[in-house]
Amino acid sequence: MTLGFGVVGTGAIGREHIKRITKTLTGADIVAVTDVNQELAEKTIGDLDLNANVYEDDSALLQDDNVQAVLVTSWGPAHESTVLKAIEAGKFVFVEKPLATTAEGCMRIVEAEQKHGKRLVQVGFMRRYDNGYRQMKQAIENNFIGEPLMVRCAHRNPEVGERYTLDMAILDTLIHEIDTLHWLVGDDYKSIQVTYPKKTSKALEHLRDPQIVTLETKSGIIIHAEIFVNCQFGYDIQCEVIGEEGIVKLPEVPTLEYRKDGVLGSGILQDWQNRFNDAFNNEFQDFIDSVRHKGEPQGPSSWDGYIAAVTGDAGVKAQKSEKVEPIELPDRPEFYQQKKSEEIV
Amino acid sequence: MTLGFGVVGTGAIGREHIKRITKTLTGADIVAVTDVNQELAEKTIGDLDLNANVYEDDSALLQDDNVQAVLVTSWGPAHESTVLKAIEAGKFVFVEKPLATTAEGCMRIVEAEQKHGKRLVQVGFMRRYDNGYRQMKQAIENNFIGEPLMVRCAHRNPEVGERYTLDMAILDTLIHEIDTLHWLVGDDYKSIQVTYPKKTSKALEHLRDPQIVTLETKSGIIIHAEIFVNCQFGYDIQCEVIGEEGIVKLPEVPTLEYRKDGVLGSGILQDWQNRFNDAFNNEFQDFIDSVRHKGEPQGPSSWDGYIAAVTGDAGVKAQKSEKVEPIELPDRPEFYQQKKSEEIV
Amino acid sequence: MTLGFGVVGTGAIGREHIKRITKTLTGADIVAVTDVNQELAEKTIGDLDLNANVYEDDSALLQDDNVQAVLVTSWGPAHESTVLKAIEAGKFVFVEKPLATTAEGCMRIVEAEQKHGKRLVQVGFMRRYDNGYRQMKQAIENNFIGEPLMVRCAHRNPEVGERYTLDMAILDTLIHEIDTLHWLVGDDYKSIQVTYPKKTSKALEHLRDPQIVTLETKSGIIIHAEIFVNCQFGYDIQCEVIGEEGIVKLPEVPTLEYRKDGVLGSGILQDWQNRFNDAFNNEFQDFIDSVRHKGEPQGPSSWDGYIAAVTGDAGVKAQKSEKVEPIELPDRPEFYQQKKSEEIV
Amino acid sequence: MTLGFGVVGTGAIGREHIKRITKTLTGADIVAVTDVNQELAEKTIGDLDLNANVYEDDSALLQDDNVQAVLVTSWGPAHESTVLKAIEAGKFVFVEKPLATTAEGCMRIVEAEQKHGKRLVQVGFMRRYDNGYRQMKQAIENNFIGEPLMVRCAHRNPEVGERYTLDMAILDTLIHEIDTLHWLVGDDYKSIQVTYPKKTSKALEHLRDPQIVTLETKSGIIIHAEIFVNCQFGYDIQCEVIGEEGIVKLPEVPTLEYRKDGVLGSGILQDWQNRFNDAFNNEFQDFIDSVRHKGEPQGPSSWDGYIAAVTGDAGVKAQKSEKVEPIELPDRPEFYQQKKSEEIV
Ligand SMILES: NC(=O)c1ccc[n+]([C@@H]2O[C@H](COP(=O)([O-])OP(=O)(O)OC[C@H]3O[C@@H](n4cnc5c(N)ncnc54)[C@H](O)[C@@H]3O)[C@@H](O)[C@H]2O)c1
Ligand SMILES: NC(=O)c1ccc[n+]([C@@H]2O[C@H](COP(=O)([O-])OP(=O)(O)OC[C@H]3O[C@@H](n4cnc5c(N)ncnc54)[C@H](O)[C@@H]3O)[C@@H](O)[C@H]2O)c1
Ligand SMILES: NC(=O)c1ccc[n+]([C@@H]2O[C@H](COP(=O)([O-])OP(=O)(O)OC[C@H]3O[C@@H](n4cnc5c(N)ncnc54)[C@H](O)[C@@H]3O)[C@@H](O)[C@H]2O)c1
Ligand SMILES: NC(=O)c1ccc[n+]([C@@H]2O[C@H](COP(=O)([O-])OP(=O)(O)OC[C@H]3O[C@@H](n4cnc5c(N)ncnc54)[C@H](O)[C@@H]3O)[C@@H](O)[C@H]2O)c1
Repeated sequence: MTLGFGVVGTGAIGREHIKRITKTLTGADIVAVTDVNQELAEKTIGDLDLNANVYEDDSALLQDDNVQAVLVTSWGPAHESTVLKAIEAGKFVFVEKPLATTAEGCMRIVEAEQKHGKRLVQVGFMRRYDNGYRQMKQAIENNFIGEPLMVRCAHRNPEVGERYTLDMAILDTLIHEIDTLHWLVGDDYKSIQVTYPKKTSKALEHLRDPQIVTLETKSGIIIHAEIFVNCQFGYDIQCEVIGEEGIVKLPEVPTLEYRKDGVLGSGILQDWQNRFNDAFNNEFQDFIDSVRHKGEPQGPSSWDGYIAAVTGDAGVKAQKSEKVEPIELPDRPEFYQQKKSEEIV
Repeated sequence: MTLGFGVVGTGAIGREHIKRITKTLTGADIVAVTDVNQELAEKTIGDLDLNANVYEDDSALLQDDNVQAVLVTSWGPAHESTVLKAIEAGKFVFVEKPLATTAEGCMRIVEAEQKHGKRLVQVGFMRRYDNGYRQMKQAIENNFIGEPLMVRCAHRNPEVGERYTLDMAILDTLIHEIDTLHWLVGDDYKSIQVTYPKKTSKALEHLRDPQIVTLETKSGIIIHAEIFVNCQFGYDIQCEVIGEEGIVKLPEVPTLEYRKDGVLGSGILQDWQNRFNDAFNNEFQDFIDSVRHKGEPQGPSSWDGYIAAVTGDAGVKAQKSEKVEPIELPDRPEFYQQKKSEEIV
Repeated sequence: MTLGFGVVGTGAIGREHIKRITKTLTGADIVAVTDVNQELAEKTIGDLDLNANVYEDDSALLQDDNVQAVLVTSWGPAHESTVLKAIEAGKFVFVEKPLATTAEGCMRIVEAEQKHGKRLVQVGFMRRYDNGYRQMKQAIENNFIGEPLMVRCAHRNPEVGERYTLDMAILDTLIHEIDTLHWLVGDDYKSIQVTYPKKTSKALEHLRDPQIVTLETKSGIIIHAEIFVNCQFGYDIQCEVIGEEGIVKLPEVPTLEYRKDGVLGSGILQDWQNRFNDAFNNEFQDFIDSVRHKGEPQGPSSWDGYIAAVTGDAGVKAQKSEKVEPIELPDRPEFYQQKKSEEIV
Repeated sequence: MTLGFGVVGTGAIGREHIKRITKTLTGADIVAVTDVNQELAEKTIGDLDLNANVYEDDSALLQDDNVQAVLVTSWGPAHESTVLKAIEAGKFVFVEKPLATTAEGCMRIVEAEQKHGKRLVQVGFMRRYDNGYRQMKQAIENNFIGEPLMVRCAHRNPEVGERYTLDMAILDTLIHEIDTLHWLVGDDYKSIQVTYPKKTSKALEHLRDPQIVTLETKSGIIIHAEIFVNCQFGYDIQCEVIGEEGIVKLPEVPTLEYRKDGVLGSGILQDWQNRFNDAFNNEFQDFIDSVRHKGEPQGPSSWDGYIAAVTGDAGVKAQKSEKVEPIELPDRPEFYQQKKSEEIV
């Protein structure tokens, strides 16, 4: 019995995920789609040769009994409403980040889900499914480097356009580090600060780029995250955890080592799709398998979506205040307790 | 419409591939199985929870209309007969290496397939689907290093047991390099020689280990391949192509870089399953997709299986003679012309 | 004509430098030594087989006409007085860091030297002579990465003993980064801040370790420097400059790459002597050659010693206040203008 | 008491070594020079500001009592005669490779030296003084990788001119590997073979390039050495020893790691001077120190020069015959027994 997906939002990433589910992964089908742009929804059906119904909106789609899981890939502001309706309907949800655009919105989902009684929702933070991060997580869990004390990471992108605004550095770019790092070190955030180094002349007028974000966790781990979205040279994700007894570092993306023209080199990717393609596949396959065989998803939860929202808000505030901003999080409910890596695989 | 596989041989790798097809890949199902060990065939159905018929032998299995493709994972000596029957029945075949245990046997398959009129058979040489080798192939095709002149490679394994005999170094170990390297440099082999360095004290009495194999191609490329199956330290596949203008090298398997106890290190794998798991997945998905959407497989062909057999035979002869042994190959038939990487993806 | 050195302080590093000058470098001799511990001075003469006079104190030593340059390797608090006397006597001075223990002391030397009319003093900041840092400096000067925007560096040491106090993290450990980094990016410091991550359980009661120091330069470059003196795994100096168009990173110390026991590894050094031995040699040879052939030293100047003192003081203050502390530096006098790397070699 | 050098041959490398001895190293002076080109000898004195006598020829130079050691940097064919005269005169000799151009010539020197009763001669094989090779040697001596079984190495050069003839690939290029490798693995050569891969189109008409040399030692170690003198991309020396329990590899030359324009790269040198500058310095300083303090040199001996000559001759023969050529070496005389690395430093 394959898992029937209904897709809400057939834009760029919606289509990518549809292709992924139909052409690469196993155990699921697309049975229904919708988009406020109905033409686009229709076209998607045609282009990708799907055997699926097109619905007018998410509510209609949710009434289709063949829809067992909803893939929410609409614009961020539309996520909350669809997710809440899906929970109401008792359907599984895979929602691209953000879970909701406000912390309150996330909390409403958290509460609805708890009320429902078991996990239905997974948020699209795919980095936890990246092989490199997984190896780091395991090494840390196995105490390979002792207690983590510091993290140094970087999120670099060749360039961004006019539409990229200052707060997107937190809400669209850093958001992945926000989710990954607290999971990686197994701790919660306490505060966030943003500092602005000398601005690169390659950034547009309205932006400040690069930015350095300092996160501190409750146990005192200090995380320095560089965000540099006009770094020119490539899409480059770095992460290094410094522990009491040693250091682990994300492996470089494996590309050919070459010798040519006086250079001993290898390639750096230019975009995130290539960088995290395997992670996206792992993420969805895990969602499909968990839902089918364990009856609930085990990836990033609504609670993780809530943490990201609260931290993101504090980050945007910190961008403006240039001060240390507290991150106030209630204790993680029992319902959302994290599992060790070995319990998950 | 998914592709229905009938599996002949539910041993170690047969089961691995069944799991792969059912749990990871898309577009195919296992509809029938057989094994001379009927109990094992039955048990496989149960263990892996397959909805498949168990047949007495390959002939019976081939009569099942739901079987559109045959997966041949029996012992090597049994391959030829099953493949010939499958071609006779007009079914697609994925056959683990070797295609057949003799060059003549391979040639019989080549002829049967040509008589059939279109490609049906793919041989399980998965390295061509490894990401690193693919990047090398593309770099060479794009003339990134000019004409290839030399290749240096190594196939290292931690240790082997009592049953590993001298000729297995060629027929089971080197066989993968034999297939990969002529494809990589786009040339055919002319001769092979085996030399024996000082023997490691870690090898059993009856074995000579390491061995160095020198292959020369028709255009004069010289390939040095080290086979070292008791190297102790890990499973380690190396390959480097030296061209007129530069060198490309297979990337190391990406593992965490760590600093600990005075060592800046990363891990080396211990077995081939981990090393080539992605390649196996890519290989099968490509077989499934090609058969479904293009009507024929596009991976390593019967002709490639034949090349491997002829080269393997010459290699075993060279192990004994310690002389340069010619590799006599007819010209590649039009029917089996290789495609460029970009035509394949 | 070789350069005659008089050595003030024949302790650990004094003896190292004497050996260096007599056994490895060219163009200089030790002609006189003194130490408050006269026995040690005598013993040094004997142990190292020097043909040199032993004097009662620095004043007596300075009156020896054969002393053309003074090597000051006494304890820090004694440096200022000896250096001032040497300038008074018109002799060249190589003084181990610190130039003086207070900013005022350094300023007195700066003023005395300017009054003298030409440079006499070089301070023992040897990192500028390390091959890796030199390559970084040249790359930056050649605009290889565009304008520098951020620096990430780390100073890691396996462990420290009882006597290592909190302020030594700034004054003895970070002091080398303090000198190297403003030179590297060609800018002056504006402020310093110290933050304390979670403390390692390997550090003694009285210490806070690791520490993270944030330096900001006048043009807005932000430098994050990790000081971690009980990191266990080795002596590890890292430095990375992130510019508008690319990044340059200090090369790892070249050691054998090995494959053994499942590890692809190389070694990490355990102490600073091995790490910077070549730099010490280059530093002294340059001092000797410059003084002999150009009539003045060209390495780190009194002004650099003054910068280090002011920055160090602010750093110690920042350790206590846990606030951003300003670094107030007058403009660099014309007399101490920095030269480009190519003017130096 | 410094060591007085008389230099025979003030050509390119003669001048380099003179500069080295006078400007970088300690314990030696140039007291006399000669060259068949007397003008050049005179000019050298002037250019390098030497306080040395110019002699008509080597015989005259050897009569100068201030000449305690002779540096032979004339053309290869002139070496033997000068070395023999120097031994006759009881003077130390540092002779650039080759010791003599024929094996017989080398043997005459070996015999003269033995007759003299203690070592006087060191041959200019500087690689043994390269830090990377030293680390390899120590690792092997310490049994870090168990018994060595195979060696893979490469000697690559960007390009060569008209004058570079086929035999120079052995006598001028490979000669350094010839000396280094038997020392590295502590064994003697048994045979040599040369094979010619496909020729690069970048090589001139008269040359065959690349070449692969296979050396076998008495205990059965097999060495594959690639010589590629028109490799275009850089000067690149590689060496890897594969032992029973692991592998050690020469470290890459440490250059900046950078990220720029989609490349994660570091630099490859373009010439041998930069590559082996430190080795040359270590080599000469060791010669000077050993002669001064131990009364004899401890670097590569006349016997090593003889081995190189015999092996070189066999190599040139192998270039022509394209067969395995025996290398016939008498047992190493007690007089020339090798020392372990730790006995040397
Ligand atoms: N995990 C990641 O790395 C990652 C990467 C890219 C995008 N995303 C997230 O995915 C989401 C979609 O991004 P995108 O790049 O595909 O955007 P997009 O604009 O290409 O597509 C969004 C689509 O949703 C449709 N839509 C909007 N509101 C809707 C509604 N109420 N009901 C139905 N359809 C609606 C739009 O018409 C549009 O076709 C965003 O939330 C984004 O943050 C995540
Ligand atoms: N591509 C690779 O890297 C790779 C790796 C491992 C194995 N292989 C190949 O796969 C094949 C199987 O290897 P394995 O390790 O699974 O062996 P195995 O012994 O575990 O399994 C073989 C199975 O085939 C069955 N069998 C034998 N003859 C049969 C016949 N005539 N009809 C039906 N069943 C028959 C046996 O009973 C057994 O269960 C071999 O040819 C091997 O070379 C390839
Ligand atoms: N550049 C570097 O990396 C580096 C490394 C180590 C030490 N140092 C510096 O070198 C200096 C010496 O350090 P050390 O480790 O050799 O210390 P040390 O204690 O081993 O030696 C100092 C010596 O100076 C003598 N001395 C003290 N006051 C004197 C005076 N007024 N006149 C004559 N002699 C006097 C002492 O008796 C002692 O023998 C310190 O300033 C230290 O910071 C620099
Ligand atoms: N170890 C190395 O890596 C290395 C590198 C380069 C050269 N070498 C060796 O150094 C030697 C010199 O090479 P070069 O490049 O300097 O050559 P070069 O031609 O530049 O210099 C040789 C000099 O010797 C002089 N000369 C020749 N015969 C003489 C004689 N009988 N008496 C006095 N002077 C004589 C010539 O006039 C010339 O000035 C060669 O044997 C070469 O193989 C070794």
